[in-house]
Amino acid sequence: MKSVVVLSGGMDSLTALARCIMLGEEVVGLNFQYGSKHNFKEFESVKKIADHYKISLKVISLDFNYYLKSDLLLSGGDIPEGHYADENMKKTVIPFRNGIMLSIAAGFAESIDADQLILGNHAGDHAIYPDCRVTFIDAMSSAIDLGTYKKIQLKSPFQVFTKGEIVKYGSKINVPYELSWSCYKGKDKHCGRCGTCVERLQAFDDAGVIDPVEYEDRSFYRQVISEFEAKN
Amino acid sequence: MKSVVVLSGGMDSLTALARCIMLGEEVVGLNFQYGSKHNFKEFESVKKIADHYKISLKVISLDFNYYLKSDLLLSGGDIPEGHYADENMKKTVIPFRNGIMLSIAAGFAESIDADQLILGNHAGDHAIYPDCRVTFIDAMSSAIDLGTYKKIQLKSPFQVFTKGEIVKYGSKINVPYELSWSCYKGKDKHCGRCGTCVERLQAFDDAGVIDPVEYEDRSFYRQVISEFEAKN
Repeated sequence: MKSVVVLSGGMDSLTALARCIMLGEEVVGLNFQYGSKHNFKEFESVKKIADHYKISLKVISLDFNYYLKSDLLLSGGDIPEGHYADENMKKTVIPFRNGIMLSIAAGFAESIDADQLILGNHAGDHAIYPDCRVTFIDAMSSAIDLGTYKKIQLKSPFQVFTKGEIVKYGSKINVPYELSWSCYKGKDKHCGRCGTCVERLQAFDDAGVIDPVEYEDRSFYRQVISEFEAKN
Repeated sequence: MKSVVVLSGGMDSLTALARCIMLGEEVVGLNFQYGSKHNFKEFESVKKIADHYKISLKVISLDFNYYLKSDLLLSGGDIPEGHYADENMKKTVIPFRNGIMLSIAAGFAESIDADQLILGNHAGDHAIYPDCRVTFIDAMSSAIDLGTYKKIQLKSPFQVFTKGEIVKYGSKINVPYELSWSCYKGKDKHCGRCGTCVERLQAFDDAGVIDPVEYEDRSFYRQVISEFEAKN
């Protein structure tokens, strides 16, 4: 079984990769450079992860990102702080990003005669990201199956997992989370205050596992979560 | 109604654009540069077409095309001659090309607040292109609807038309076919011998219309068509 795993440098795609390795699949990692603010830190992680698992890594640069509108991009405004499901986090969504990455990945997978394509999206992504929801993944999965000669299969192993469940599962198969990067700000350490940091800290908390990466602020997330829960 | 029309420089997308203009839509043309052998001639046509209709034209370069395997690309082998539905024409298919272009177009459409995305694919495309078939377009259409906030609609007005019907329809609304380019070889004139030239000449023939572009060989297609019909 030959699998193309979309690798962002984050903890979800790292866990998806670890699962393929555990299952004995032949893996090619595929990373997309799309001009995000945290690109440098993400890419550093992607390289460490590929080295760790000794897999082939391909990198595709999406140079057309100046045509896409999002505060996650270098061309956009400031990264908002707070809960990852807050309305203002929508500003960090890159329009149809998963559709774009999956389509290019499907063309690439067909070109190297791979059997499947792995995406590490999960249930928690669904709040503000329309292109992470199960209905979207199902439609995209049909499009890729129907639009390739090889009938490439799109697999999304964690699509009904919470992020906490991913950490629980990953810890059991010894995923090296210290190699991953999530923070949208992309500074030296994880900030602990942006939407992804808050979500990541909550996930490790839910799983009862200590997150091995360094944070500037490791407690801010508790306040954000309790404020969010009080409001909703 | 704001529409993004994927423009290749060919006669199908030109007709789709002419239809939008006739319907009074606000149109943005979107062209993809993907490293094909006939890119220069196609792009010359795209610019003439955009000038003719005085529409805004955006150009996106797919610099990652070296990761895709196809004889249509500069990196691939020779362009085969003969019938467009012959098995060897598969070598000119770019894996998941329509999926890739439509996904990027969807992200772009969402970024400029457009309502719909127009693709000029047609019934004749289905023989060897899996990513032109109605089932593929339907799945992709769901993925784009589900994966965008704006619920961008993918419209494929000619998906049950033959190419001959497109010419018939286009001639009635005065489509300037002299501005379009189809030949995969991309030389000075249309070669008249590659799969797309054969298909184009047959379409004009079916419609009872004279194709206004110049050909190196305007009669070869008759022989190809009759040989193909005798075999199948």
